[in-house]
Amino acid sequence: MKQNMIYVPIVLAILGLIFMYIKMVWVKKQDAGNEKMQSISKSIKEGALAFLAAEYRLLLIFVIIASLALFGISQLVETTSIMIVPAFIIGAIFSALAGNIGMRIATDANARTAEAAKTSLPQALKVSFSGGTVMGLGVAGLAVLGLSLFFLLFIGQFITDGENFYNEMTVVLEALAGFSLGAESIALFARVGGGIYTKAADVGADLVGKVEAGIPEDDPRNPATIADNVGDNVGDVAGMGADLFGSYVATVLAAMVLGNYVIRDMSINTPFTDDFNNMGPILLPLVIAGIGIIASIIGTFLVGIKDNTAKEAQVQKALDTGNWTSIIITLAASFFLIKWMLPETMQMSFFGEGIKDVSSMNVFWSACIGLAVGALISMVTSYYTSLGKKPVLDIVQNSATGAGTNIIAGLAVGMKSTFLSVLLFAAAIYGSYYFAGFYGVALAASAMMATTAMQLAIDAFGPIADNAGGVAEMSELEDHVRERTDILDSVGNTTAAVGKGFAIASAALTALALFAAYVTFTGIDGINIFKADVLAMLFVGGMIPVIFSALAMQSVGKAAMEMVHEVRRQFREIPGIMEGTGTPEYAKCVDISTKAALKEMILPGLITIITPILIGLLFGAEPLGGYMAGVCVSGVMWAIFQNNAGGAWDNAKKSFEAGVEINGEMTYKGSDAHKAAVTGDTVGDPFKDTSGPSMNILIKLTCLVGLVIAPILGGHSTHTKESHKEVKVEIKSTDDEKATAVVTTTKTENGETISETETIEGTVEEVKQKVKATMDKDTIKEEDVKKIVEQTEKNIKEKLEKKE
Amino acid sequence: MKQNMIYVPIVLAILGLIFMYIKMVWVKKQDAGNEKMQSISKSIKEGALAFLAAEYRLLLIFVIIASLALFGISQLVETTSIMIVPAFIIGAIFSALAGNIGMRIATDANARTAEAAKTSLPQALKVSFSGGTVMGLGVAGLAVLGLSLFFLLFIGQFITDGENFYNEMTVVLEALAGFSLGAESIALFARVGGGIYTKAADVGADLVGKVEAGIPEDDPRNPATIADNVGDNVGDVAGMGADLFGSYVATVLAAMVLGNYVIRDMSINTPFTDDFNNMGPILLPLVIAGIGIIASIIGTFLVGIKDNTAKEAQVQKALDTGNWTSIIITLAASFFLIKWMLPETMQMSFFGEGIKDVSSMNVFWSACIGLAVGALISMVTSYYTSLGKKPVLDIVQNSATGAGTNIIAGLAVGMKSTFLSVLLFAAAIYGSYYFAGFYGVALAASAMMATTAMQLAIDAFGPIADNAGGVAEMSELEDHVRERTDILDSVGNTTAAVGKGFAIASAALTALALFAAYVTFTGIDGINIFKADVLAMLFVGGMIPVIFSALAMQSVGKAAMEMVHEVRRQFREIPGIMEGTGTPEYAKCVDISTKAALKEMILPGLITIITPILIGLLFGAEPLGGYMAGVCVSGVMWAIFQNNAGGAWDNAKKSFEAGVEINGEMTYKGSDAHKAAVTGDTVGDPFKDTSGPSMNILIKLTCLVGLVIAPILGGHSTHTKESHKEVKVEIKSTDDEKATAVVTTTKTENGETISETETIEGTVEEVKQKVKATMDKDTIKEEDVKKIVEQTEKNIKEKLEKKE
Repeated sequence: MKQNMIYVPIVLAILGLIFMYIKMVWVKKQDAGNEKMQSISKSIKEGALAFLAAEYRLLLIFVIIASLALFGISQLVETTSIMIVPAFIIGAIFSALAGNIGMRIATDANARTAEAAKTSLPQALKVSFSGGTVMGLGVAGLAVLGLSLFFLLFIGQFITDGENFYNEMTVVLEALAGFSLGAESIALFARVGGGIYTKAADVGADLVGKVEAGIPEDDPRNPATIADNVGDNVGDVAGMGADLFGSYVATVLAAMVLGNYVIRDMSINTPFTDDFNNMGPILLPLVIAGIGIIASIIGTFLVGIKDNTAKEAQVQKALDTGNWTSIIITLAASFFLIKWMLPETMQMSFFGEGIKDVSSMNVFWSACIGLAVGALISMVTSYYTSLGKKPVLDIVQNSATGAGTNIIAGLAVGMKSTFLSVLLFAAAIYGSYYFAGFYGVALAASAMMATTAMQLAIDAFGPIADNAGGVAEMSELEDHVRERTDILDSVGNTTAAVGKGFAIASAALTALALFAAYVTFTGIDGINIFKADVLAMLFVGGMIPVIFSALAMQSVGKAAMEMVHEVRRQFREIPGIMEGTGTPEYAKCVDISTKAALKEMILPGLITIITPILIGLLFGAEPLGGYMAGVCVSGVMWAIFQNNAGGAWDNAKKSFEAGVEINGEMTYKGSDAHKAAVTGDTVGDPFKDTSGPSMNILIKLTCLVGLVIAPILGGHSTHTKESHKEVKVEIKSTDDEKATAVVTTTKTENGETISETETIEGTVEEVKQKVKATMDKDTIKEEDVKKIVEQTEKNIKEKLEKKE
Repeated sequence: MKQNMIYVPIVLAILGLIFMYIKMVWVKKQDAGNEKMQSISKSIKEGALAFLAAEYRLLLIFVIIASLALFGISQLVETTSIMIVPAFIIGAIFSALAGNIGMRIATDANARTAEAAKTSLPQALKVSFSGGTVMGLGVAGLAVLGLSLFFLLFIGQFITDGENFYNEMTVVLEALAGFSLGAESIALFARVGGGIYTKAADVGADLVGKVEAGIPEDDPRNPATIADNVGDNVGDVAGMGADLFGSYVATVLAAMVLGNYVIRDMSINTPFTDDFNNMGPILLPLVIAGIGIIASIIGTFLVGIKDNTAKEAQVQKALDTGNWTSIIITLAASFFLIKWMLPETMQMSFFGEGIKDVSSMNVFWSACIGLAVGALISMVTSYYTSLGKKPVLDIVQNSATGAGTNIIAGLAVGMKSTFLSVLLFAAAIYGSYYFAGFYGVALAASAMMATTAMQLAIDAFGPIADNAGGVAEMSELEDHVRERTDILDSVGNTTAAVGKGFAIASAALTALALFAAYVTFTGIDGINIFKADVLAMLFVGGMIPVIFSALAMQSVGKAAMEMVHEVRRQFREIPGIMEGTGTPEYAKCVDISTKAALKEMILPGLITIITPILIGLLFGAEPLGGYMAGVCVSGVMWAIFQNNAGGAWDNAKKSFEAGVEINGEMTYKGSDAHKAAVTGDTVGDPFKDTSGPSMNILIKLTCLVGLVIAPILGGHSTHTKESHKEVKVEIKSTDDEKATAVVTTTKTENGETISETETIEGTVEEVKQKVKATMDKDTIKEEDVKKIVEQTEKNIKEKLEKKE
């Protein structure tokens, strides 16, 4: 068993995929409703698949270019294997496949959820949540399967039985980074492109449909209505799925890289051995991920309600029960796995503090911190964006004095929400590092991400219910159907906000783990922002998320305008469209959103990928580290700010549906205050659905690109290119007044050894000063200088004393 | 002359103050107009002075508490003199005095400018610009005078003729930091409090006056109109003045601290000597500042127009001529001063690169970079916020589709404006460091700030002209008076935007110079963000500007609401107020703004001051450095974003006054698009006048507090508390199989020496590994370990060979 541990995550992943298949078949077996419902559902599915097809074409070009670049790197750098190329391609394909499966099932499940809602709310929940489960298990199963299979392949290829385990494993993990890069590249297209798509369609549909033509949301007469529903799937299902697929893979990878460093640190005296082929710390994160899949499956059995008259609270409770069950199972399993797979006491190198003993229990505490902080950040997000809580009520109150004060209040809520989130995040860094170094940080992230399947199931169920409502509306089903889907949709809105909190927390911790892996990969002596170039790049990095957000927001504006013109044209040119006798050309609107989204994401995408490469090549590894830190710090801030401001504005607007009390008066939809709140929501939409979530991808991709190009930047961890310098000072002769010293400097660089000798003569004081100056010029650490100078001084004194 | 160089800046500062006095007398001699004008002007002056008086009361409490804290520090820390307390108090008093002078002259000049505008535009420019000049010279003169006098006093007190120059000078500069801290504390009150004041009054006056009562701006029937005009002075005159006073002092101080490090680096072989009492590099920034005052005075003579029918362009050109003249004079003088006062070749320690030779010309290039980047950032700011340029036109176009799209466009403009500004700023760090290390960075900042007197004169003239317009309106003068003051006001709006760009660029460079001084002051080995605690604090620091901005924006909202209620009450309760027969109670509105502003600034002020102290004490010097960097990076981003978005929104709104073409149609005031633009401006107002400019203070004060508490955080640069460790390995005996080694570790910490000896026996390989492990545990640098291990190995081999 122990020897074959690597097969465990493979088996668990396959189990997850089998369960996914069963669920998929079950969903498809459900009644898809009448012809109209099927036709609408089909249109949405076709639109979604059309977007995917267009995305794949663009992706193909991207993957070819990136593969060539990676091939180039593998040829240039000794420690990067050519296997990084297939890993990258398969990473991209697996992520795309997971998105494809999720999108298909989500678009299959919408009409079936609506049909189920005709008779039973519990059944509607079951159908929509099963759809979400398929998505979640697809993502988690394919991620773990892909990572484990490549790992198995690579260890077979690169690991020999020799003493060089650590260096060989570095080659393995560097090739594996290709898989992660492939996955994250798809996330860029899916999350950013999807974010632009969904908001362009939404804003376009609303501006002409609701505002100009005065027809309700999801009205079949609106040509953009299918595009709008497609957008929910493209943005919230495929985008979120690809985002978490990327985080999941990157987190596990980073933990494996840092596990390898634990093995290195423990091999100082004797080579590290354990029963798990001597790679327990590396395998652990993979196994935890596998267990998380099973825990998520168990959790899904607990998501269900019995009462047909249930309200939001019961549905939410059912989801919470499933979620917490899977989290607790994962935590318990992690406890035993950590005890079992890690040595009881490990030696880990703590930066600037040397090697410390770390018990395996400490690693468990780090994992607990990851889970706790993930949950707490989700709660903070929920507080700042939920109906009825103070932040949203503040925005509602400020809507009474107009759009201006509504906007100010919303911006302030978003900004203030960074406070607790960032403190929690800082505490997570501090705490998990305190317990188990950067391996602890990576394990914290891994533990948080372990139940990704469950998180995604909960996240994806929302848009399915939302779409089901759309199908019900467009097919003119009875009101109680819409009422039931609205209950699910409303819960979905809360889970969506919480899911965004989870996504940013996971992205941030992932980025951090990647950042730690980067520093150890490049073998640089930390990232010192007191160096001017590093500091300059920290500022440049801080600016990138701001620019990225601006570009993403503008893209939505441009794409929405194109949509507006198209919808206006159809209203004008298609006879009978407003009377319901003419059929709108839905496909044209889908096409416009698709093209605009993909076109508009190219510039921000290029900035994300090319900037770190340029900085790395022009300035080196340490300034690139500064850049990465700048992107992370600023990106986390802007992600939280934009997500929460957007979520709060949305719910402030929604508050008016049930009516709110402002200055003692009940105020409803249609009031001036409501109009102000609608303006706020217009601003918030691209915040929370486009630019905000894009930050996740930006920070992760930045760190991944850094990690992949790390070997080019010199100073690689395998020490093959490291330079080495030795300074020797010898006191040749002294008398009362004069001294002579010989300073020999031996430099070893890329295998070549250069030796220089300098003889210094003069008074004792002069020799002392000159030796010191020579040392300084050779950029020796100040401590060393002092040590040597003092030694020199002592030697001279001793010799003088002897003479006397 | 050379020996008495310290007296040069003192003389130049006094010359500046004398010229200021002459200008002040001249302004006061001008005709202040009819009785009504004088009465209005008097009300504004009284309101402004009432704010100052209230501010002083709060300040007094603050200064007492801070003085006690500083006294405590001076008792705890050997290297901090008790003289930091008087330096702090006088710094606060001088800054307050400069603000007081500026505010008095500005409120004297407004009616006189209006009176002059009756007959002549050139004369109106002369009066208003003279008012600005008084402000500028007051700030610059008092700053240089205060710094130089204290420096003179402290060197007399602390510098002996002994060898301990560097440590003694450190004590001098640490005490001098008190002056800077005092100045910046006032800036906190003036800039943040003033920012809240001005917007509360403005929004309050507009909401009830313009919107509810439908009376025009500056209408004497509006009770808040005096408060509104007071606000212009409180925020734009006193606030900006205190901000630049703080930057100016802090920059010169940081350059002096770094000059002392140059002297230290040059004293390795032989003590540094020059003709300027061995302190040329320290005196240089003070002398450049003094020269800048004279250059500014010369520049002011060139600001004037002759043509009574001149337009904005001519006025702008006159200001530009004066500004560039003073910059060029300063640059030329700096060239000669640098050549004269610095050694031709200096040795400077470059972090991580050891000691390098730097020619004095390099320092001049750094100064050029500072001036160039200051000018370029101002140009970028101007581009993003000016009427008729693409960014503002974009916002105008987006106003057509409503407030939502206007807001999105404005946010995007603000965000995009960070791109070039941050790249320029990064280039400034990189370039000035490249030429002359951190001394170069500080000199770049000093050069940029040298013409502060001129910058402030140009800045302060705007609000004076604005107020003159208000006086003209309220006194119902003829239309051509308002037209003339409007020309000046319009130019003032441009200079205000450019001035904000200058203020943030200077604050950022100042913070950077302080940051460099901090690292050298604490004697830490750089700031390594690969340490988890440093990284965690980098995130916390990044969050502070966001929270600060949120608090500042909310404060404006709260204070404005109080104002609204008061104005409504007066409209309701004072008989005949709307008919112009009843007199509004202006003073009550002034009082409300004053109290609200001061109350609301306490929380953000406390956060600014207490957070770095807490972090320093709890986590130590290096995490505090991470925090400072986080505040700087994030603060610069949010400052540029908020200032430029606010400026662009403002001018987008103003564009409608002359009419703009949207989709082929001319659109004017009162249109829906204009209403959307007004909403944008409402959001932009606190951005550009409260939270945006507050960032300057936040980042500078954070770094200053860090600098002042640096000595408490241990590891001080005088090495009095440094720990030292030495490891010695001796090979006692070896034979074919076995070896014995004795490892002696000697630690010196706070004067105590502890010695430990360990004997290692075993096979040759075992001894080698154990020695290595022992070294590792003692947290020796990896290089050392390798060095020692290799040495050990070699010794063992040699002994073995000898035996054979």
